[in-house]
Parts: sequence; structure tokens; C-alpha cells
Amino acid sequence: MINETYKEMLGRKSVIREMSEFATKRGKEIGYENVFDYSLGNPSVPVPDEFNNGLIDLIHEKTSIELHGYSPSVGNTAVKQAIAESLNRRFGMNYTGNHIFPTTGAAGAVAHAIRCVTKPGDEVITFAPFFPEYHPYVEGAGAILKVVPANTEDFQINFEAFDEMMNENVAAVLINTPNNPSGIVYSAGTLKRLSEYLYKKESEYGHDIFLISDEPYREIVFAGVEAPYVSGFYKNTLSCYSYSKSLSLPGERIGYVAANPECTDAELISAICAQISRGTGHNCPSSMMQLGVARVLDITSDMSVYETNMNILYKELTSLGFEVIKPGGTFYIFPKALEEDAIAFCTKAKKYDLILVPSDSFGVKGYFRMAYCIDTAKVKRSLAALRRFVETEYKR
Amino acid sequence: MINETYKEMLGRKSVIREMSEFATKRGKEIGYENVFDYSLGNPSVPVPDEFNNGLIDLIHEKTSIELHGYSPSVGNTAVKQAIAESLNRRFGMNYTGNHIFPTTGAAGAVAHAIRCVTKPGDEVITFAPFFPEYHPYVEGAGAILKVVPANTEDFQINFEAFDEMMNENVAAVLINTPNNPSGIVYSAGTLKRLSEYLYKKESEYGHDIFLISDEPYREIVFAGVEAPYVSGFYKNTLSCYSYSKSLSLPGERIGYVAANPECTDAELISAICAQISRGTGHNCPSSMMQLGVARVLDITSDMSVYETNMNILYKELTSLGFEVIKPGGTFYIFPKALEEDAIAFCTKAKKYDLILVPSDSFGVKGYFRMAYCIDTAKVKRSLAALRRFVETEYKR
Repeated sequence: MINETYKEMLGRKSVIREMSEFATKRGKEIGYENVFDYSLGNPSVPVPDEFNNGLIDLIHEKTSIELHGYSPSVGNTAVKQAIAESLNRRFGMNYTGNHIFPTTGAAGAVAHAIRCVTKPGDEVITFAPFFPEYHPYVEGAGAILKVVPANTEDFQINFEAFDEMMNENVAAVLINTPNNPSGIVYSAGTLKRLSEYLYKKESEYGHDIFLISDEPYREIVFAGVEAPYVSGFYKNTLSCYSYSKSLSLPGERIGYVAANPECTDAELISAICAQISRGTGHNCPSSMMQLGVARVLDITSDMSVYETNMNILYKELTSLGFEVIKPGGTFYIFPKALEEDAIAFCTKAKKYDLILVPSDSFGVKGYFRMAYCIDTAKVKRSLAALRRFVETEYKR
Repeated sequence: MINETYKEMLGRKSVIREMSEFATKRGKEIGYENVFDYSLGNPSVPVPDEFNNGLIDLIHEKTSIELHGYSPSVGNTAVKQAIAESLNRRFGMNYTGNHIFPTTGAAGAVAHAIRCVTKPGDEVITFAPFFPEYHPYVEGAGAILKVVPANTEDFQINFEAFDEMMNENVAAVLINTPNNPSGIVYSAGTLKRLSEYLYKKESEYGHDIFLISDEPYREIVFAGVEAPYVSGFYKNTLSCYSYSKSLSLPGERIGYVAANPECTDAELISAICAQISRGTGHNCPSSMMQLGVARVLDITSDMSVYETNMNILYKELTSLGFEVIKPGGTFYIFPKALEEDAIAFCTKAKKYDLILVPSDSFGVKGYFRMAYCIDTAKVKRSLAALRRFVETEYKR
């Protein structure tokens, strides 16, 4: 019989996906260039030429078995070493290759990290607003996701609510900075307070509490903002990274888990992740993609368009009277809607061909997300629609 | 805390892996060319030039987003359609693209297929000799693997023992033809009898029993042997394929699940697999690899070396007095050991730098596997060692 749990999931379509499908459909009617589609976090800038040229070089330089043969189940040794050295150079860490486990993007990284440090029935705490896919990652491991309500002052952590929710069944805390959907970067102060709190609770409960740091937007940080390296604050940290955004290759599914060299069983994490892979059939990302990213570890796509777009939208939104916290990074902005019901707000926006995502599935009510990883020209064209929408529907 | 279940798995090293590690170590002492390493099923022939050239063309022809952008969560539409058409052309099926779900190799395919048609606690039956990784695939889904004892006459199915093991908790039957480790291909007669039996049991129990057909060796079939397309025999079939062997690219992790168009919920299988992926963080194989294989669907690497090697080994083994069934395909041969304890037999063989894998982990006692996906010259050089081993240890 077909598994009913998965079959039922088909009925619960993601709001982001629904909005995106509406945008595609509407695009067929009026031309997609006229649909102001802020629904999907799909990088719009090209991969660096160095990456594609590197792939061509690999095809010419490597033997078939070196390029396309099995990588070890814990990942390609040289690639792991190169990633470790890049992280050490940039963030002052002491990783060796053995602390790095290559994965199919951040999704694979978070899914492995959760299975690694929880057992079925354990609790994992995350903070609103949060990426809704944390539900399947955590529930797929048999653990329970608890969501701390948002601190809507500045979208840093709501420590009071966190403390109320904390209990000894919590095996891991899952954070995402720079954050999807808020665009906010956790400050050094937030991370310091978080790590002190977790050390205290580890000591109180007498067991590890792992910090799983989901950081696919780590390289998209705007001028004047400092994005501290999370693992530098707390020993029991598993950093989950993806090259999807920094190199614009989300389809290639390449990222990693990096275990802090001082975490519990640090030398075993990679090997344990390889055991987890056996059960899910993951068995390493593409060998060619591992080798490809290892050649361009310290460069990124030209992502300046995201900051340009953010500044245009932030200025217009504030001038239209939106309450909005200026993003420190990512390609998202998360303003407060002009009515309590964000779904109603986003439904009305559709009439103006503005595709916005209501905040409900991110664990906050009354906000909306705009993914501005689109052409700046289109962002500029969207401003008139945004103004018309607000003035017509909300008489501002 | 680190998950104890996965941590304990670290202690239980696979015999195949142990043998392979011994071969590597011994190779450092005497030169790897002098170690007759029959341990690993790692394709030795190069990928077809058409594949690598196709990748270079893709880099030149496609935009960054077309090539490296997100594929839909159910896989690239054009790739799915091309795979369906290739299967229809070659095997007289009626797949549409919607029946095809691209996966990270056969491992990903089998892991998805099992989750798709079982619920935790269900039983999955397979037949010895079997690929030991079926344990983590099945147990990772929370199901229970039951192994029908081998039919050592011809390594077709032991239907009597199968019937004794069958019960209404069985949700799926998992077969592998051409078979690792025996090299045997299930005959049309075997598949017809299997399908008739399963139809009868479906009717008796009043529920589906899915046939999960793991067929990464489908294209490695030797002269005079017919390898019938399994899904042509039984409606509720999920075919699990990998390009690892046919195109020699095991490191690229690219394969698919193909749902028989007449199976229960055939139109939903792909979408259900995409839901399963959300929980494991799998999220599609590399977009470039999907596009790459779609260009070379009807060709394979030059795999004639495998048949050459098989014939050399089969002749020598029979002349040395081994009981051995001639493989119909794959790059494995599975002779009976010269003593009851296959582990003792393979341990003795190491003294002659012959790296053989004892059959115990494949679910049969007293046999051994040779993976002859190596140079023919080395196979020939190994014959003297094989003869010396047999004559010295077993006085033949």
C-alpha cells in the first residue's frame, strides 16, 4: 500500500509553492516580465565563470574514475581538507578534513545534523520566523520541532520565550542566520547570550545540547553588517552550509556539515553522518560537484544586486509607511502587513500582480516575505504597483 | 547527545570494506598491481566520451539558471520525459515523464521506493544472496527485512521457502536481477511465477504487494542470456535504476525510480517520492547530471571487458574444481568455497594476495564473491595465485 503519511502530505501544498505557481500562471496571461514575482528564493545571478571553467578543466585533467568514480562514503578526502582550510583561513577555526561531511545542499546538511544529534522523541527548538522545511527535516528524524515565538522588535532571539520552552528533552537548537525570511543577521551579542545560555543548560541537564546552525546565506551580508561565525561561539555546533546561494547553483545540491573540532565526538561526526546516509540512500553529493566547488571555495557569484534591490525596496516600503526591519543580508525582506491577516493582505496584492508570501508558515502572523533575488529593473517597475496596491486597498 | 544507533553502526564494519582496506594496505607494501583485489564493485571502464562532451556542451549552451538552477522537486520535466521514452522504446512500456522520479543512484531509488510503499513495522522480503545495503535501506524506513534462503541449485528464487515466509504484513518484495553477488539473471519463467504468486497473494490479503526491482546491472548482460524487463511482468512494480554501472559514473549519484503506469496510484508515486525527499534532505540529484545522462540514454560504456573477465575466471574456477554457476551478467561471480567456513577460506586466500569476499553478509554461507571489474591483464595474472592457493591449501 502507498504510505498514507506521505500521500497526505501531497494535499498540504506549501504557500510559497502556491504563490509561485500563481505567478507562473499569471505570467502566461500577461507576460512574466509584468508579474512582480517575489515568491521564490531562487538565485538570479549567474555562477562565477571560474566554476564552469573549473568543471571543463576537471573533465580534461582527471581520469574517468578520478572524476566520476565513487567518492568515499564520508566525502572526497581532498575536498574535505580544502573546505576545512578555507573555513580556518576565513573564520579562525581549527577544522581538519575529518570534521567536514559533504552533503546534498543545506537540506541534506540539516537533515543529517538532526539525525546525528537526536533520537526519536527528542525535541528540537527553533526560533520564529523560521524556514518551514525545518518541519520535514526534524519530523523525518522522528524528533519534535518546537518553535519559539518571534521577537518582533528586531527579529533577534526572544530569550524569555526560549527559556519558557527549554526543557531536558531538548537535544538540539536550530538557528538560521542570516535569516530566511527576515533577512536579519544574529549579532555577536545574541550569539554570545545564546551560547552562555546553552552552556548553562547543558550543565544543568547533564547532557549535550547541540546547536545546528543553518547558514546558506552566510556570504550574503550587506555593508556595515557583521555576520559572526556561529561555531566560534559554542563548542557543540554543527554548521550546515550550501553553495546554492553563494555560487548560484541550487540545482547541484552541494553543501556540507562542519562539526566544531571541540564538539562531543567531533572526530566521529563525519563517519556517523555516513551511516545516516546509508539509510536514506543519500550516499554523498556528486563527485564532480565536490571537486568543482573545491576549486572556487573563496569566491562567490557577484551578489551585489541583492543589496541594491534591498535598498530600493527598503526605501519604498518605509516611505509607504510599512513597519520593516532593515535586512542585514540574504535576499529577503519581511515587512509587517497592513492588516492583521497576512493571507488576506497577500491575496489582495495579487490583483496588482504583486506576488508576496504571507508570514504564517514562517511561524509569525501579520507579516509577509519578499524574495528580491530578481532583476533590479523589475524591482523598480514593481514600485508603482506596490504604491497603487497600498493606496487603493489601504487608503494611504 | 550523539545518536547511539548510528554510533554503534560504526563498530560494525562491512566485510567488503574491510577486504578492500586490506587490499589497499597490502598494495602499499608490494605494489597494488600485485594485489588481486576482487573486493569492490567499482566500474573500471571509462565513461563514454559522449557523456563528458555532453557536459561541456551543456556548459556552453545553457544559461546558468537552466544548468545549475533548482530542478522541480519531482525532477527535471524534460529529463523525466526522455527517460520514459527511452524505456518505452527499449522495453515496450507506456511510461510518461510523470512515472519517473530521478534519484541519487540506485541507493536513493530503493530507499525512496521502500518508504513509498511501506509503513513502519511492515515487512519487506528479499532473496538470498542479496546486497547487504538492503538492511539500512529497509530499516531506515522503519520496516523489517526478511531474507528467503538461497536456491543454491541455480540462484533463481526458492519459491517454497518464499511461500513459508510470506504473510499479510508483507508490503513489498525486493529483487535484484542481474544479481549482486551471484551474477545470475532471473529468467522469464522465474519472473512469471513470481508475478503470478504475488497477484494471488494480493488477492488473498486484499492489499497491494509492491515489487521493488533493483536493477543497476540491467545493461550488463552476457551473450546468449535474456534479461527480461521486470516491470513488464507485474503491475505493482517500482523499477530502481542507476547509471553508475552502465555509464561508469557511480560518484555522480544519478538514477531513478520508474513506477509501472498501471500500479496503484501510479500518477502520484513521483510526487510522493518528492515528499519523502523533504524529510531526508535528498531534494533531487544534481541538475547537471540529470541533463547529462538525458543526452546519452541509449548508450553505455564499453563493458565488454566484464564478459571477457567472467569467461576467463569461470573457465579457471571450474578447471580447479570449484562448483560455480555461470553468471548471466553483472561483474560478479559467486563460487562455492572449498571449505564450509567462507570467512576462513577468504582469510587463507589473503596469503596469496587474493582478495575475495566471503558470502556470509550476502545471506548465504560457504560461498565467496569475486568482483571482476578490473583489468583483464590483472585477472590473467591472478590465475597462477588462484591455482597456487587451491593446490597448497586444499591439496587439489
